Amino acid sequence: MQIGMVGLGKMGYQLSLNLIEKGYKVSAYDVNKESVDNISKDGGQGAHTLEELVQQLESPRKLWMMVPAGDITEQVFNQLLPLLEEGDILIDGGNAHYKDSLRRHAASKEKGVYYLDCGTSGGVEGARYGACTMIGGDKKAFAQVEKVFEDISVEKGYLYTGEAGSGHFLKMIHNGIEYGMMQAIAEGFDILEKSPFDYDYEKVSTVWNHGSVIRSWLMELMENAFSKDSKLDKIKGVMQSSGEGKWTVETALDFQTAAPVIALSLMMRYRSLEDDTFTGKVVAALRNEFGGHAVVEK
Amino acid sequence: MQIGMVGLGKMGYQLSLNLIEKGYKVSAYDVNKESVDNISKDGGQGAHTLEELVQQLESPRKLWMMVPAGDITEQVFNQLLPLLEEGDILIDGGNAHYKDSLRRHAASKEKGVYYLDCGTSGGVEGARYGACTMIGGDKKAFAQVEKVFEDISVEKGYLYTGEAGSGHFLKMIHNGIEYGMMQAIAEGFDILEKSPFDYDYEKVSTVWNHGSVIRSWLMELMENAFSKDSKLDKIKGVMQSSGEGKWTVETALDFQTAAPVIALSLMMRYRSLEDDTFTGKVVAALRNEFGGHAVVEK
Repeated sequence: MQIGMVGLGKMGYQLSLNLIEKGYKVSAYDVNKESVDNISKDGGQGAHTLEELVQQLESPRKLWMMVPAGDITEQVFNQLLPLLEEGDILIDGGNAHYKDSLRRHAASKEKGVYYLDCGTSGGVEGARYGACTMIGGDKKAFAQVEKVFEDISVEKGYLYTGEAGSGHFLKMIHNGIEYGMMQAIAEGFDILEKSPFDYDYEKVSTVWNHGSVIRSWLMELMENAFSKDSKLDKIKGVMQSSGEGKWTVETALDFQTAAPVIALSLMMRYRSLEDDTFTGKVVAALRNEFGGHAVVEK
Repeated sequence: MQIGMVGLGKMGYQLSLNLIEKGYKVSAYDVNKESVDNISKDGGQGAHTLEELVQQLESPRKLWMMVPAGDITEQVFNQLLPLLEEGDILIDGGNAHYKDSLRRHAASKEKGVYYLDCGTSGGVEGARYGACTMIGGDKKAFAQVEKVFEDISVEKGYLYTGEAGSGHFLKMIHNGIEYGMMQAIAEGFDILEKSPFDYDYEKVSTVWNHGSVIRSWLMELMENAFSKDSKLDKIKGVMQSSGEGKWTVETALDFQTAAPVIALSLMMRYRSLEDDTFTGKVVAALRNEFGGHAVVEK
């Protein structure tokens, strides 16, 4: 089968290599010319424009869009859709908001193009050697490309999740859970770090990964991290977030659902980005006002 | 090696079977006579009193205490210690608070008895087929019984954690992390349940366990649970807790450490035990007072 890859960033490049290895004919486009040249050397066919990419593909085309969520996805989608024809299948493997995917699904449908929203988990390594994919959209279109998902995912690692939007929605919730699990693990190690005991965190992670209730891939990643930097002395505790946690919390609010742990995991990330907080100033000022408690002056 | 098992409840009985299978000579005591009779049929030697148990063991004795944390552990320890002699090793495999273990360690030391605090994870199945154990206490005493921990744990599933108290402390933190991970998973499924999509939760758990970032033993347990009851219709969302989560939060407070996710996981458990709350009444009353908002009358 021929696949057109749109985007050769961290994820798209590795996914292309994965597809090439599985016997797919991969044509690939990126704004970065170097990536396009590299994929040609790695067994793919490079395309320097979206038009070129679309021309390289036989009808009905199968395209996989793997670009950053938000503006870039929107721009690429708006450029790409006019080039496609009835019966073509466009898979969005990025982290789009499910409501944007519903909108893109509707716009595609008007042209007779099938839009599949595919949540992709497993990180860069997963993209290369076996991902976890959750796919929403037209069931018949899914059936046409099911083999692709089967081939690039680990065994049992793909799921048709139902109607349009359900794939990206499920991936969003997956990431929300991930935020909570990560924060819980982090708080546990933080308490260990403040304890009177002297633990070897790499060994702690190892033992927790063998037979304990909290054994998990995240704890395996902790083993890797602590094996390289036993107290994480080399990094600062700045926790970025890329949007899916925020969407999960916004969605919980839309549904009037209590999700305090996921919400606080997100807010603790925001807190970590600030060296000082206005919250802190306000509370310190009030304690000073009513009780004369000393403030720390700048 | 001969091992004296104190306590033949869910965990102690399975652990005894595990030890017997590994070739240990197990003598076992419980207040429940039926359990004592059963273990005799299952290849162990039953003891109907602690005195009888202690007499059955050759010096220096190795005893494993596997009884519920709190009062029962305290009572059994107070009855057992006077019966022991210098050089005996007493392993507490229960979920004792690390400060209680420090106290028991000190009391044991006065008599020349070695007290090892062993956190045991992996549930009932782990006790039977391979647990995860974290052991604090005297290093030489640990060395004398290291083979026991190696034999009853899964491969790489035991760790000598250092000085007295560190084993139970580490197990406490493990359970705190477990609370947070479970609540995060639960909130994710709750949002899915309120979504417009129609997911098969067993299949969702399965795909999340294959290649995703949140793959974990807890998610495998979700697969099992949803395979038996696809929407968990048969159970009520009452979340009990057995103490270790509370201790983790108390410890975080003692260390003045922010652990909001673990704390909220615990408090959401408390919330789940109440059909109605006084919090709810207070907020409803205040909204009524200042804004005339309708209250729901009983």
